[in-house]
Parts: sequence; structure tokens; C-alpha cells
Amino acid sequence: MDRTFKLVIEYDGTDYCGWQRQPNGRTIQQTIEDALARMTRQAVVLTGSGRTDAGVHALGQVAHFSCDTTIAPEALQKGLNSLLPDDIVIRACQPAPIGFHARFDAHGKTYRYTIRNTPLPAAIGRQYAWWIRSLLDTAAMTAAAAHLVGRHDFKSFEAAGSPRAHTIRHISHAEVRCDTQGIVTIDVTADGFLRHMVRNIAGTLAAVGRGKLPSEQIPALLDARDRTLAPPTAPAHGLCLIKVLYSEEGK
Amino acid sequence: MDRTFKLVIEYDGTDYCGWQRQPNGRTIQQTIEDALARMTRQAVVLTGSGRTDAGVHALGQVAHFSCDTTIAPEALQKGLNSLLPDDIVIRACQPAPIGFHARFDAHGKTYRYTIRNTPLPAAIGRQYAWWIRSLLDTAAMTAAAAHLVGRHDFKSFEAAGSPRAHTIRHISHAEVRCDTQGIVTIDVTADGFLRHMVRNIAGTLAAVGRGKLPSEQIPALLDARDRTLAPPTAPAHGLCLIKVLYSEEGK
Repeated sequence: MDRTFKLVIEYDGTDYCGWQRQPNGRTIQQTIEDALARMTRQAVVLTGSGRTDAGVHALGQVAHFSCDTTIAPEALQKGLNSLLPDDIVIRACQPAPIGFHARFDAHGKTYRYTIRNTPLPAAIGRQYAWWIRSLLDTAAMTAAAAHLVGRHDFKSFEAAGSPRAHTIRHISHAEVRCDTQGIVTIDVTADGFLRHMVRNIAGTLAAVGRGKLPSEQIPALLDARDRTLAPPTAPAHGLCLIKVLYSEEGK
Repeated sequence: MDRTFKLVIEYDGTDYCGWQRQPNGRTIQQTIEDALARMTRQAVVLTGSGRTDAGVHALGQVAHFSCDTTIAPEALQKGLNSLLPDDIVIRACQPAPIGFHARFDAHGKTYRYTIRNTPLPAAIGRQYAWWIRSLLDTAAMTAAAAHLVGRHDFKSFEAAGSPRAHTIRHISHAEVRCDTQGIVTIDVTADGFLRHMVRNIAGTLAAVGRGKLPSEQIPALLDARDRTLAPPTAPAHGLCLIKVLYSEEGK
């Protein structure tokens, strides 16, 4: 009888064409499905909480699959981690209730966008942060982020060509932090995200930080519902999916 | 007329066969020499403070070169950084006094060895730390490190086949630290290092941390002057050359 499993997955997206299986190009989904097929000797379909773009990382992507197996969750996790390349790690493998769906059951997600705001780029860790040379005004970025919190139409922050019913999302938390090493992080939690939404928010907050856009302009930018008015999209490699939220976790 | 320049270099050693130029394989030295040749239109020899092994990283490798150029140091740095791949960054380029030699003038070096001591490996940042699953006793490692400080014969910590006059070195500082995320760092400063010395020290301290070797055995291990008695060498990718010390820096 089929059993359903929930996986929590960390990956370094550098060498992948994103999450989603595709005819040409190595993807996270396909790589894990191949390992699952080797373990279970069945064709297994893995369903993620959502796609991540090429080059985007994850600390806590969630996916589910169903298959007819007697292998224990711990053994599945161990086996997968031994089969998978070292840029993908299964952080947890749990039995899931019947009908659990990684995408439909998700109540929200938290992403982190990382900027390295230093006079010189870094060689070590360059894969995980967008380098911006000019000193960012993080207080202005914080003020701009505050305007994004709440239920808004985020059409100005959506990439073209994404299938969705509407462009209204609820950002419950948006926070800009800066450490003493010049690492600026932008954490955004929402009930859902449009295509490139966090990267577009990061690009806009960076423009605010550079003094190219006053933070008070954010409400007008939201109202305009026009992507062409907002600053350019931030690069993929600064983005990391931190956590997918489900109701059993109290949200 | 020839001028001498001092470079401070950061690199991610993951995709290199180490520092030293070699007939087969991409090296840091060769990559920078190629960029220097493009900028100066001369064959330039770059002399490092010492070699680093394949896979070893550096935040502060130092090297010098001499050539007949009128290019200003700042322009050299900028030009090199635009020509070099993004896993090598020239952090500083300064005019050096006549006769400056990156290796002979170095008074010491600081290396850091990083261990990720967590139940699961990491995908993100896996290139920069040795993963050890079993919980390390960092207090025992600290006690073991203390036995290494001072002037000792480090033959038990030297890889075979290295050219050197003798195996006595002076470790002025050795420190083990552990953060709340399970990242254990071993910082070692000495007047010089034997081949694989830090990796052999890291391997030995890890054995102490795992309870396989009592810290009180370190003095006997030093006295034995026998590499075969000490635990295995730690992998290269956990090692980073942090700083090369010169007299103008007060040491």
C-alpha cells in the first residue's frame, strides 16, 4: 500500500537549473527522484512546495512523495543522503498523513536574500550572496521593507509569465539586518510568493539602500501594479528558501 | 625599471590543484600570472608566501612580483580583479620595498581549520568545512592544542617528502572555538609550517575530540617524532590560510 513521506531538503543551487524537472538540464527534483527510484525500485514523483529558480538555494525546501515501500523513514533518509551528490542533503524524512501535499498544504514560506555589502567581492562564499560595493543605507531599506508588510497587490514585484489566479499576497514579516562584516540579509515571510517576488523585492530594497529610490515611494510602486516601474531583479544566487510553513507548526 | 608589488589574495581553492604552478592542472599561481601577463604584456613570475594544497582556501595569501610597469598599484588591483575568475580576489596590491620577498620575509602565518560538527552534513558551505558527525569534546581539544603551543619538533605532524632543513617550529597560538551552530574552528599561528602540518594537527585534535586519543598523549606524540603514530590527516577543504605575518605588521 502506498505511504506518503515528507522530506525537508537543503541544497546548494549553484550547479542546478532550479528545482523543477525539465528535459534539458540537471534539476534538484530530478536528482532526488532518481535517488528515490534507485532506493524503492519504483518510478517516484516528488512534489515540492514550489519551484526555485536556477541558482537559488534552500535550507528547508519541503517535498512529498508516495510509494509502496516498507523502508523506514530513517532508512530512506540515510539511503538518500548516501546516494545524493553532496550539494543536496535530506534534513528530515517523516511519514506524512494521508493526503498531505507539500504545495497545497503550505501556509507560507520564509525566504532570505543575502547581500555582501563590502568594498571588494569575496571569493569564499561568493555563491551565496549578491555583492554590492556602494554602502547601503540599511535604515532606509528597513523603512522600505515596512511598507511591504501586510496584504498587498504585488504585481509590481512579479516576473511576467507566471500562472496565478491573482497577484495579492500577504507578507507577515519583512526584516532587513546588517552584521559587522557587511552582510545584509532581507528575510521575507508571506502566505505565498509570485514568480521572482523576493528577488524583485531585494532589487528594490537595494535601490532604496543605494539612495536611488526613496522608501516613501514603495506604496506608490505597489499601487502602480507595473513591474516596469520597479528596479531590476536581484540575482538568483543571493536567494535561499529558509522554511515552508504548515499548519502543524502552529501557523 | 622593475618595481616590486605585494599582493594579498583571497581564493576559494575548490576548483584548483593548489597554489603552485604545475604542468597539468589549473593552479592559483598560474591563473594570477596569466592575468598579470595580460595586464603588463610581460612574463611575470609570482612568488607566494608558500604553497597551499589542492582544495585549500585562503583569505590572506601573500605573493610578490617584479616587473617593468608604470601601472599604479590600485589600477593593477582593479585590472586583475576584472580579469580573474570570481574564485580569486586580489584584496590588496601595494608597492613593496626593493628586495621584498613574500616567502623569505614572512615571520609567520595563521591558518584556520574549520569543522562542522552537526548530526547531518551541510549542502550550503560544504566546501569550507570538514563534517564530523559525532559530538566533539572541544574542552579536550583545547587541552590538546595547549600542548602544541611553544617550540617543538613537529615531525609527527609532517607529511613525508617535504624539503626542509629541520622539523622544529614555534607555534605561538593555538585555539579551539565552538559556536552555537556546531562550527568548530582551530586557529594556529606559527613561525612556519611543515607540509600538511595544520591538517595533521586538525586530524589529531579531532581524534582527541572524538575520545580516541587522550589530550595528555600529545607530548608523547611530539616526542615520538613519528607521523605513523598520529591520527589521519584532516581533509584539505576545511583549511584556510588566514594571514601571513611580516615584520612591518609588528611581529
